[in-house]
Amino acid sequence: MVVKVSIFGMGLVASHYIVGLYRLKEGSMKPYGVPLAKYDLAVDFLEEEIVSVYDVDTRKVGKSVRDIVTESLKDVIPLPSSLPETEVRKGLLMGSAAGLDKLFPVSGRDQEIEPMEAIEEIANELKKDSIDVVFNLISTEPAEPFRSEEELLKRIKEGKASAAQAYAYATYLASKDTGKQIAFINLIPTPLANDPVMVNLFAETNSLLLGDDGATGATPLTADLLEHLAERNRLIRFIVQFNIGGNTDFLALTIPERNLMKEKTKSSIVEDILGYDAPHYIRPTGYVEAIGDRKFVAMDIEWITFNGLVDELIVNMRINDSPALAGLAVDLARLSKALMERGVKGTCYEVNAFYMKNPGPKNAKNEARIKAYYDMLKYLKELKIIKE
Amino acid sequence: MVVKVSIFGMGLVASHYIVGLYRLKEGSMKPYGVPLAKYDLAVDFLEEEIVSVYDVDTRKVGKSVRDIVTESLKDVIPLPSSLPETEVRKGLLMGSAAGLDKLFPVSGRDQEIEPMEAIEEIANELKKDSIDVVFNLISTEPAEPFRSEEELLKRIKEGKASAAQAYAYATYLASKDTGKQIAFINLIPTPLANDPVMVNLFAETNSLLLGDDGATGATPLTADLLEHLAERNRLIRFIVQFNIGGNTDFLALTIPERNLMKEKTKSSIVEDILGYDAPHYIRPTGYVEAIGDRKFVAMDIEWITFNGLVDELIVNMRINDSPALAGLAVDLARLSKALMERGVKGTCYEVNAFYMKNPGPKNAKNEARIKAYYDMLKYLKELKIIKE
Amino acid sequence: MVVKVSIFGMGLVASHYIVGLYRLKEGSMKPYGVPLAKYDLAVDFLEEEIVSVYDVDTRKVGKSVRDIVTESLKDVIPLPSSLPETEVRKGLLMGSAAGLDKLFPVSGRDQEIEPMEAIEEIANELKKDSIDVVFNLISTEPAEPFRSEEELLKRIKEGKASAAQAYAYATYLASKDTGKQIAFINLIPTPLANDPVMVNLFAETNSLLLGDDGATGATPLTADLLEHLAERNRLIRFIVQFNIGGNTDFLALTIPERNLMKEKTKSSIVEDILGYDAPHYIRPTGYVEAIGDRKFVAMDIEWITFNGLVDELIVNMRINDSPALAGLAVDLARLSKALMERGVKGTCYEVNAFYMKNPGPKNAKNEARIKAYYDMLKYLKELKIIKE
Amino acid sequence: MVVKVSIFGMGLVASHYIVGLYRLKEGSMKPYGVPLAKYDLAVDFLEEEIVSVYDVDTRKVGKSVRDIVTESLKDVIPLPSSLPETEVRKGLLMGSAAGLDKLFPVSGRDQEIEPMEAIEEIANELKKDSIDVVFNLISTEPAEPFRSEEELLKRIKEGKASAAQAYAYATYLASKDTGKQIAFINLIPTPLANDPVMVNLFAETNSLLLGDDGATGATPLTADLLEHLAERNRLIRFIVQFNIGGNTDFLALTIPERNLMKEKTKSSIVEDILGYDAPHYIRPTGYVEAIGDRKFVAMDIEWITFNGLVDELIVNMRINDSPALAGLAVDLARLSKALMERGVKGTCYEVNAFYMKNPGPKNAKNEARIKAYYDMLKYLKELKIIKE
Repeated sequence: MVVKVSIFGMGLVASHYIVGLYRLKEGSMKPYGVPLAKYDLAVDFLEEEIVSVYDVDTRKVGKSVRDIVTESLKDVIPLPSSLPETEVRKGLLMGSAAGLDKLFPVSGRDQEIEPMEAIEEIANELKKDSIDVVFNLISTEPAEPFRSEEELLKRIKEGKASAAQAYAYATYLASKDTGKQIAFINLIPTPLANDPVMVNLFAETNSLLLGDDGATGATPLTADLLEHLAERNRLIRFIVQFNIGGNTDFLALTIPERNLMKEKTKSSIVEDILGYDAPHYIRPTGYVEAIGDRKFVAMDIEWITFNGLVDELIVNMRINDSPALAGLAVDLARLSKALMERGVKGTCYEVNAFYMKNPGPKNAKNEARIKAYYDMLKYLKELKIIKE
Repeated sequence: MVVKVSIFGMGLVASHYIVGLYRLKEGSMKPYGVPLAKYDLAVDFLEEEIVSVYDVDTRKVGKSVRDIVTESLKDVIPLPSSLPETEVRKGLLMGSAAGLDKLFPVSGRDQEIEPMEAIEEIANELKKDSIDVVFNLISTEPAEPFRSEEELLKRIKEGKASAAQAYAYATYLASKDTGKQIAFINLIPTPLANDPVMVNLFAETNSLLLGDDGATGATPLTADLLEHLAERNRLIRFIVQFNIGGNTDFLALTIPERNLMKEKTKSSIVEDILGYDAPHYIRPTGYVEAIGDRKFVAMDIEWITFNGLVDELIVNMRINDSPALAGLAVDLARLSKALMERGVKGTCYEVNAFYMKNPGPKNAKNEARIKAYYDMLKYLKELKIIKE
Repeated sequence: MVVKVSIFGMGLVASHYIVGLYRLKEGSMKPYGVPLAKYDLAVDFLEEEIVSVYDVDTRKVGKSVRDIVTESLKDVIPLPSSLPETEVRKGLLMGSAAGLDKLFPVSGRDQEIEPMEAIEEIANELKKDSIDVVFNLISTEPAEPFRSEEELLKRIKEGKASAAQAYAYATYLASKDTGKQIAFINLIPTPLANDPVMVNLFAETNSLLLGDDGATGATPLTADLLEHLAERNRLIRFIVQFNIGGNTDFLALTIPERNLMKEKTKSSIVEDILGYDAPHYIRPTGYVEAIGDRKFVAMDIEWITFNGLVDELIVNMRINDSPALAGLAVDLARLSKALMERGVKGTCYEVNAFYMKNPGPKNAKNEARIKAYYDMLKYLKELKIIKE
Repeated sequence: MVVKVSIFGMGLVASHYIVGLYRLKEGSMKPYGVPLAKYDLAVDFLEEEIVSVYDVDTRKVGKSVRDIVTESLKDVIPLPSSLPETEVRKGLLMGSAAGLDKLFPVSGRDQEIEPMEAIEEIANELKKDSIDVVFNLISTEPAEPFRSEEELLKRIKEGKASAAQAYAYATYLASKDTGKQIAFINLIPTPLANDPVMVNLFAETNSLLLGDDGATGATPLTADLLEHLAERNRLIRFIVQFNIGGNTDFLALTIPERNLMKEKTKSSIVEDILGYDAPHYIRPTGYVEAIGDRKFVAMDIEWITFNGLVDELIVNMRINDSPALAGLAVDLARLSKALMERGVKGTCYEVNAFYMKNPGPKNAKNEARIKAYYDMLKYLKELKIIKE
């Protein structure tokens, strides 16, 4: 059963996902970093195929995926012999252009034709390509959820929706027109799986909207650390978490509105897990190009232990940011396909709770990842997606 | 329902447990560091009462608990107005004396009378005092499990059992003679809950033997960190964990045989949780008196992530060693009482798995603490020990 | 030889300086944290006396120093039996009010009378009190150096100078009128010792202007670490330094223009010491009240070693911010007095190079503190300020 | 002016030195990690030439340097096109065999012929090869200094000297017989530059004995950190330093007597720099092969600052152990040659103080490296070894 994949945002995560997938296909690499690789799943990740890719960086549009991937990763990891030759297509800018053009040259279809027309064009391409799963991997953008379908339509027509919202809507349209189930996997902070309006659209077409914001790096670890402390009834005095890196996402986060989006998804864990809002400072902190994709994380947590004494935990990490998310993507594409086949629609908390920083649906709780993992395993076994 | 407690080993953990308990009784402190404090339990920790205390340090034997506790903690934490006046009684040295006498002056009843006679003397005292729960908090000692009840009797008679083994046997005798259930909670590495011969004795008297080695500080955190990494299918390249402190337990661990005992209980998590024996160095590393009870822990973990790249996690902690264990003791006394009342006997994996470094029974698996916690909650709710 | 001291800015550093000084006077504390305490200096720190204190926080103006100090430090350190009863006088706001009034209620004399009049009032008080040494310890403020004495006069008259610049000018006026030498020690980032116009004024009155920005915490350590690496000819790939704390200074630094001032003095070390501008991110990062005065610092440095391999150094610190600076102040008051007596005037690079983040005069190099220390010792011995 | 080099101990440091030297010769690498590379020195490092190499590992003896180096470094760094073809000659075991044969198969000339005969054989080879500089890079060994030349001769004849002592004596003999100056650079802990008997022998032949134990990694950094703290008169409460690695030297240090040698040279800095013996634990801590040559260092330092408050500094490092030492070797060969030409003989504190953990001569002080660096620069400029 082939899983046809389309990607919005041909950045480093997409490159790592593509290279990793083809290395796995040619058998030259073990699936480390793919959470469920050790289980026998209903859909094998080797079935995933890259069909189309979209971007707004004019330096990438029109180039082949092979060339882009080769340029960005040839000095970092061994490249597989086969890589998709697909050309990167021009994507949508919508309300997300602001500030981005200071970082690199951008151009979107919605600058040339009406926003809704541009969205329909992309929907048609998704239909024509028989896409099963769409990844949203564009740069972090400022965005507000919709309050109603009317507002959604209005903002989209006026070009005031964000790019991610427009891509999700294009995916919904493609699915609606053909009756084919298509999953939209949102790996950035834009509230999509947390937007009931959006989730309802996907439920309507028996499709799936997973999200929001892939949980890699410091956030899921922090969730488990906080749970660890909470289970011992230690009172957190404060928690500080700094992140700095040199990839395009950190560059985009130097734009204050984008940073704020990230801060929200990163900070929501504190109260969700502890049950009280411990003093905290958790956010992407800066950009230094020379750090590259292997970001530096520093964390300091102080708590009160038995008899009122104060303990301290300091964590420092060097994490390859993009591969971590790419490894999750390998699982998420096949999981989405298997879930839709079993009739799961709208969104899926059990999967989001493990894979996402801000798991949808709206108001769903962020919980310790270790708990979410075992709950998800049970759920996937019941659905016979994991075979025992 | 009063829980009468006896303690073997009047060290810093015992001091913190006693002070904390009486501060909780007088309401001058919140129960931070007591894991189940936020639940409504069948037995309240305010019911715990210190009845007797034993030690082999000749500087302590004959002194009042109040005086010892005051001396060791008066500059560290506020002391409650009431503290037990009980005199510390002389304990057992057995095969555990070796090396200890270089650290402080020791003396045991078994040096004056036959080992079995000394054990029976203590059993009689436990009976006379109507003890419900016994804590084993003596210095880490070298010890081998028994292979049979015959071997147990032989080694005990010849004084070749360890002190902890002798105390556990005395507890068994007290219970056997009276029919009264008594729990023995082993918070040091000696294999007791991991020794089927010992566990069987306690099952025989409908009593409970919990252990081994209270899980505080770096070990349970490491368990959760390794689980976190394993759930993402990251391959651990190596894990290093250093511990250094200035309390008596770290002093005792400078004696190589004692250090080895600790290394065993600390290292067992690696293969249990990862499923393979990743290269590791995990052990108490040294003693520097000036560090005091707030030990320093350093950890370094490297793993392979998606696409074969290498990530790194460095953890540094300053942990108040004794209060952490004392907080667990507050829970364990009342839990033991409640479990025995509900007919649980021998040992109890569900509780050990969360509270102990090397959870009994023998060959039981070490698992992530976050998982063990939720499994234990479910178990305690089913037994109606946690009321919902 | 008494050293009469006046302080601008009755914050936590002033409190620690005052408490420490009086604890030293009553002999209840050793002078740890006072760099030159182990040498026999021409002027003893026991000669320092607090004569007057100024602030713009309306909650402090009119209160006694004793009360303010007691309130802020009584739970932190033992207080000496004697503390100055002096009342805090109202200071100057000038161009530095912006944003500050959102943090706490402020009021300055220059809001009531003309700026120049207010400055002269303070100059008269310094004269009347026979002040020898003035400390500038106000909140970090945005400020530009003067390009000429004309510009200085113009900006001061129009109230467009910063508060620190106005205080320095008041000090100059006091000295000019009386002929008495007065030292102004600038412990915040405002460029004063780095402003040739200001330094010339002090030279004119045979007085001394030391600064800028007291070198405590992470910056001088970073200087020595960079020197350490540079001496081995290692190529720095990047250096990252985060700082977070919960005192008023960190609060003030959440105002972007103030943060920028700090970033400048903190970053200047990189190129000065390495000889090239290695990629860096060095700045105060945030404010979390619960952290208090014991700030958290995290640093990551990567470099290329022999054969092109990459090493990494991660530093984490918990530093009591205010006492560190207060300890330097103890030395600086007496050093200033001794230097002026020996005819040193304007500014003094040899002393600034060790004690200041951005040592004046303008364009003077930031160098490793260990080198600066030995150069300063030599200089002070030649002047017979340190007796051998 | 060619500098002919011989190496005792064909391990990873020798491999890195040789590869690095030939990469520098072919111009494919910058001299990062070579401290004095930025100065114009009397002798260029490009003049250094590897002439002979000795080892006791039977797997290496008889093999070409090219093959050994290629095997150990081909996956780590780019190899230069030209590498010496020299065959590794069999070295001396002497009293240093103990325990080593458990780590790898060993064999020494002194097992076949009389110790003194074996030493003379090597001396003759050094003469024949016209060696200028000898590096001692053998595994850390237990060794005691000689009390007199008589004792030296006796212990050497009886095979009770250590291997390093025997190599140094062979070097002395070669120099004595020919009148040619030969430098012996001791980069391991064996007290040679700290042994007046040995230093006198080298002085007698106008030759130079530099040492002991190359200062790379954590020790020189600790020296500078302690100096940094001492200069601010902070009272060190304790200092802890752990080291763990996976190269042969860490393996050898699992043998307790060898570990003790390292602990001595590493700990001597504390009292030398602070002026008092602060509580400390500083030693190589363990061996985990998977860590490889990029060792992990963890350090914790607590001190008392002004007003009696406690600060803390935690340092974590990942350091390529062997390249760091190899980079120093590049300088030391040419420096030795230049020093001997200018008549420096015996040993040279000015150079040892910067490059060595335990700088000779005996009882010479360990000082901050930053100070030692500037003192050395001055010394080398006076001797016109560094041209200005």
